[in-house]
Amino acid sequence: FTLQSGYLVFFMQAGFAMLCAGSVRAKNAKNIILLNILDACFGCCAWYLTGWAFAYGDPLTTADAANCPTEPDEVNGVTWKDIQTCTYGETGPSQAFIGNRFFAMSNLPRGSYWAWFFQFTFAATGATIISGAVAERCKFEAYMLYELMIVMFVYPVVAHWIWSPWGWLSALRNPVTAANQSYVLFAGSGVYDFAGDAAVHMVGGVASLAAAWVLGPRIGRFDAAGNPVDMPGHNASLTLLGVFLLWFGWYGFNPGSATAIMSTTVPNFSKVVAAVAINTTVGAASGCIATLFIAMAYQYFTLGVVVWDLIIAGNGALAGLVAITGPCAFVQTWAAFIIGAIGGFVYFVSSKVNLSLLKIDDPLDAIAVHMGCGIWGLLAGGAFAAPGMVSDVYGPMPGTVDGQRNYGFIMGGNGAVLGAACMAILMVLVWTLAIMTPFFIILKKVGLFRVSPEVEAQGLDVSHHGGSAYPHEGGKGTNGTGKGD
Amino acid sequence: FTLQSGYLVFFMQAGFAMLCAGSVRAKNAKNIILLNILDACFGCCAWYLTGWAFAYGDPLTTADAANCPTEPDEVNGVTWKDIQTCTYGETGPSQAFIGNRFFAMSNLPRGSYWAWFFQFTFAATGATIISGAVAERCKFEAYMLYELMIVMFVYPVVAHWIWSPWGWLSALRNPVTAANQSYVLFAGSGVYDFAGDAAVHMVGGVASLAAAWVLGPRIGRFDAAGNPVDMPGHNASLTLLGVFLLWFGWYGFNPGSATAIMSTTVPNFSKVVAAVAINTTVGAASGCIATLFIAMAYQYFTLGVVVWDLIIAGNGALAGLVAITGPCAFVQTWAAFIIGAIGGFVYFVSSKVNLSLLKIDDPLDAIAVHMGCGIWGLLAGGAFAAPGMVSDVYGPMPGTVDGQRNYGFIMGGNGAVLGAACMAILMVLVWTLAIMTPFFIILKKVGLFRVSPEVEAQGLDVSHHGGSAYPHEGGKGTNGTGKGD
Amino acid sequence: FTLQSGYLVFFMQAGFAMLCAGSVRAKNAKNIILLNILDACFGCCAWYLTGWAFAYGDPLTTADAANCPTEPDEVNGVTWKDIQTCTYGETGPSQAFIGNRFFAMSNLPRGSYWAWFFQFTFAATGATIISGAVAERCKFEAYMLYELMIVMFVYPVVAHWIWSPWGWLSALRNPVTAANQSYVLFAGSGVYDFAGDAAVHMVGGVASLAAAWVLGPRIGRFDAAGNPVDMPGHNASLTLLGVFLLWFGWYGFNPGSATAIMSTTVPNFSKVVAAVAINTTVGAASGCIATLFIAMAYQYFTLGVVVWDLIIAGNGALAGLVAITGPCAFVQTWAAFIIGAIGGFVYFVSSKVNLSLLKIDDPLDAIAVHMGCGIWGLLAGGAFAAPGMVSDVYGPMPGTVDGQRNYGFIMGGNGAVLGAACMAILMVLVWTLAIMTPFFIILKKVGLFRVSPEVEAQGLDVSHHGGSAYPHEGGKGTNGTGKGD
Repeated sequence: FTLQSGYLVFFMQAGFAMLCAGSVRAKNAKNIILLNILDACFGCCAWYLTGWAFAYGDPLTTADAANCPTEPDEVNGVTWKDIQTCTYGETGPSQAFIGNRFFAMSNLPRGSYWAWFFQFTFAATGATIISGAVAERCKFEAYMLYELMIVMFVYPVVAHWIWSPWGWLSALRNPVTAANQSYVLFAGSGVYDFAGDAAVHMVGGVASLAAAWVLGPRIGRFDAAGNPVDMPGHNASLTLLGVFLLWFGWYGFNPGSATAIMSTTVPNFSKVVAAVAINTTVGAASGCIATLFIAMAYQYFTLGVVVWDLIIAGNGALAGLVAITGPCAFVQTWAAFIIGAIGGFVYFVSSKVNLSLLKIDDPLDAIAVHMGCGIWGLLAGGAFAAPGMVSDVYGPMPGTVDGQRNYGFIMGGNGAVLGAACMAILMVLVWTLAIMTPFFIILKKVGLFRVSPEVEAQGLDVSHHGGSAYPHEGGKGTNGTGKGD
Repeated sequence: FTLQSGYLVFFMQAGFAMLCAGSVRAKNAKNIILLNILDACFGCCAWYLTGWAFAYGDPLTTADAANCPTEPDEVNGVTWKDIQTCTYGETGPSQAFIGNRFFAMSNLPRGSYWAWFFQFTFAATGATIISGAVAERCKFEAYMLYELMIVMFVYPVVAHWIWSPWGWLSALRNPVTAANQSYVLFAGSGVYDFAGDAAVHMVGGVASLAAAWVLGPRIGRFDAAGNPVDMPGHNASLTLLGVFLLWFGWYGFNPGSATAIMSTTVPNFSKVVAAVAINTTVGAASGCIATLFIAMAYQYFTLGVVVWDLIIAGNGALAGLVAITGPCAFVQTWAAFIIGAIGGFVYFVSSKVNLSLLKIDDPLDAIAVHMGCGIWGLLAGGAFAAPGMVSDVYGPMPGTVDGQRNYGFIMGGNGAVLGAACMAILMVLVWTLAIMTPFFIILKKVGLFRVSPEVEAQGLDVSHHGGSAYPHEGGKGTNGTGKGD
Repeated sequence: FTLQSGYLVFFMQAGFAMLCAGSVRAKNAKNIILLNILDACFGCCAWYLTGWAFAYGDPLTTADAANCPTEPDEVNGVTWKDIQTCTYGETGPSQAFIGNRFFAMSNLPRGSYWAWFFQFTFAATGATIISGAVAERCKFEAYMLYELMIVMFVYPVVAHWIWSPWGWLSALRNPVTAANQSYVLFAGSGVYDFAGDAAVHMVGGVASLAAAWVLGPRIGRFDAAGNPVDMPGHNASLTLLGVFLLWFGWYGFNPGSATAIMSTTVPNFSKVVAAVAINTTVGAASGCIATLFIAMAYQYFTLGVVVWDLIIAGNGALAGLVAITGPCAFVQTWAAFIIGAIGGFVYFVSSKVNLSLLKIDDPLDAIAVHMGCGIWGLLAGGAFAAPGMVSDVYGPMPGTVDGQRNYGFIMGGNGAVLGAACMAILMVLVWTLAIMTPFFIILKKVGLFRVSPEVEAQGLDVSHHGGSAYPHEGGKGTNGTGKGD
């Protein structure tokens, strides 16, 4: 089941590729698809070398090695939670920050291979987000470098914080894994991030922000007065095919995450998975509808015409999906409607702010969708997490009698979950910006980041990739470039 | 397994979107894709509010509530059939017609969530069929309204009739669920409709017929003498990609339906599923080949040229798939060949009749494929249902010693199955036409149904959706209309 | 699980269709997609009639029929290997070459239906490879004939040799199935071909070689001096979408093969499947990266420009996938990196040799990818097969105490595996060429193979398929080439 979910998540790469390809101008179509393919390829190497090690290379004392499960094992129903119930010896404080074993898969038990594969697809998904933000003007060489940077180091550390039982923000910590620490669960709850709003979407979105900001807008994106000029993609059918493929892949992303946290053999497992699938659908639907109507109302009040914008609706569906990614396992269905709809609103406003106030050119709105709605998804978990469902997912609260974990303040709980979520948001912002911004600035200084204006005007495909993606169209060899589109 | 099948069925939305997008002219590509996305979104809301309640909100007396399973539960292997074996108290006659519980999922046990999700994907599939028939001329607002109408009311009632153990046509009724009724199984057999020829395809096809008839043909579809004029789609690659995606999704549709009827723990389960997968493949293959040769022969005898028509072959594959949908679980493989091939023939003839006799303009041949072959599929079940296989699927005949259910007349059985199928066909026709035709006529009267001729000529994308799907092609705002892109 | 893997493999048909469609010129797009659809349809009929019978119609004496499993059965966990442990009576020597039961599925136990379906998707995949090599100039009628030839006879025989427990090259033979033979396992090891480098990819690739060679190059592919002239496809986005779909489908192809060989109930099963999924990913990634850099270096040293070629990278990913297909279940992850990378190199060199030395025009490089890397994959299995993993997959060595099977010479084993692989390569080459070359030559003699030069210049879509795939583009009747198709 996990493997099949991993296939679906991998399929999201195809979705991103189509989404990007349709959204850029034809002269750069090959470039962006190539980036998306290489994303999977380099991501695989990077994850192999250090990614898994930094994220899940968790400690284990020799004394307990023989008796305790050390890694999740789907066959025998051993999960991260079971590790909590097994007595480990002392673990150094450094494990709260980063893992340090299993580099290049050495000594990795084969029972963990399925987890390795599933987590790899997550890491690749996170990194691919950025390709949308730097489209049409980024150098190919720069892409390879920052892709390695993110999958080898930036993403795994955040994943370790939140998803490893040793991570300092993790809701899976227990008295043993937190032995030398001043607290067990951060803020008394840990961060509830089921399928990766923080680790996947925020990391990708924040890195996109840094990249698009350092890189600057495409030529012609803003006129002399600083007003944005529309630069629509060349093929809306392809873009929307991408939305559908992503939506489909999300059914691997969200429900599949259940196996990373819970054992497949507990009685609630299939109930949680079904609830996740429904919430994912509902979040996408309400995000799409909300965005469609918001955009229509906005156009109506500013321009006086009724327009139902397809691309914005598609991005709205993605916004709803991102928003529901974090809390999908522990909110009620009605809450999923609200979360998705507000996600659509957050996307729409973030997109406007990016473009009109910050003057950041983000061809695919990757920042608004992934960073904006990633933040909202984490906050929504703090608000709507339902009491019983949280404990179903994360197991009983360590050190309590009734085992009830903290839940969302709107559901009658206290602000602990929200507090932990805020800390996660802050730390991911600081961590990602602190590493990626200097990295991108250095790339820019050494001239590796942005293509020359001539190449940009001509299109990356003809310049760097041996010809246009649609060589026969036009018959003038200048498809999509020479005629002012 | 059911969830993953549901993902595949959801993926059919992507297939329909590509099929439709490729089959319309480029000036309406965005419009039709948007319709297909919103179909999933509004369908989700509609199904949430009343759809599931009308279809599967089945009664239960308080006395038995504690002891009897009330809803299928995949974890514990409880299915609709098990409900039959549990003693319920008296149920009012109204439950034979429509369900009445679980509106907005209130009180719905979480063990039923997987069934909710799977059935939702069916409802959305049924409703999306219509978008093909009204393409290129229907108002966006009308689409939203009738989508809600079908998913909230029309489809759920038919699904209740046929698939709920309380439905008056259901083959799953038993002495308890039919307590106050004059008979247990209608015509002594009930309707054998495994994966939805009646509920999904016929409802969608008949509503398409009503819609296309009330809406009238596209401008220019028939010349002054009333002869049809070809209006080919703008991208055959996209259309065929849609056929492939649908075919792929059908493997969720048909085999997945097994879990809705049977328990996954019975020994025959995996045999039935494998047989369904093979029959589905065989039906599509023979439908495609038959249609290809029929169309070639027709062209040869009328025009004297040999043409192998891709689009017709693709529709033929879909026709075979629709035809085999109903009987796929209880016919032999050789019968699947015959059913698929005749399905292709039915499609070809229906399409010609629609166009040349009835003068109905159906851009995607949705009526011929889904209504024509849906009817044929139900009849085929009455003819070819094999004795042992029927009982494997539906369980032993209530009230008999040997448990043998009625089977198809060609296989040596009597006409009971065929009789029940005819009643189902008649009732679905009457029910859907009786509701949707007045509904569409009212929409037309208040001016909400059809766009103005100017908008139609210009294309819906430029008029209502903020620009063409392929903005760079042409650059004259007339992409895809034959005027110089 | 096997069925769902089969769906994914079926989905590869969609991938091939898109890959081919994008890679040919627009004037032939409909033709090539139609070929790919019919491939599934005719393949289904051919497999039904004789394919399964020749491949897996294995003998069984009447005395043992009651006690022994005769066919794999997923429900009860019976696999091919279990057949080995059951005592069969004598089997005639002819069963080493070809099977002879279950024509048209007659008497096939329903418990084998899932295997039938899964193996059908393999057969169809093997046959579809050829459509890429003959694209743009092959007659439609010829395609139908050779498709039947391959799925009905050529492929099943090879599959029987390697995968049936009775096949003379099979690693699954045991003293019983090899009763009257001079040896049990060929060369003491049998051929280790996990997911079909020999049966699927080599058969398809070698048949492609024969077809492209007999058919001759497209008009204009070589100039008067015999130098190749570039003929790029019309839509790189579609091609790359095809690569993604194929990669996705490969996760059905490789991991799904585990169930054909191993029982799903043995403890190692899920470990093997997870390792297969990782190796598949790694092989694709390293194949893609290696090819990208090799092609870049080649261009740099010959032309002095840095070009990152998308299409070549995509083919490199496929080359890596083909190379890892055979040994994916029993090599370490680091070996998968090496195998994939060398696969990319093999592809690049084979492609150049084909084009520049042999002057064979293969529009999709099907020969280089499938034949070249298929051979390499078999050799790689002989080199890198790891000791413990081989026995995990194929079970203990018959007639030994420690049960250790032979393994790769680089891993410290002897050359037995390599020897068996070489014999398999030789025999598949001889068998396929010996049958298909005369077959194609006869087709050519009777004028059924190649379209006339006029039709080729005009494009197959307009001539044979009733119009262009993109009827609205151009409006000048010159879609896609500017030269009058």
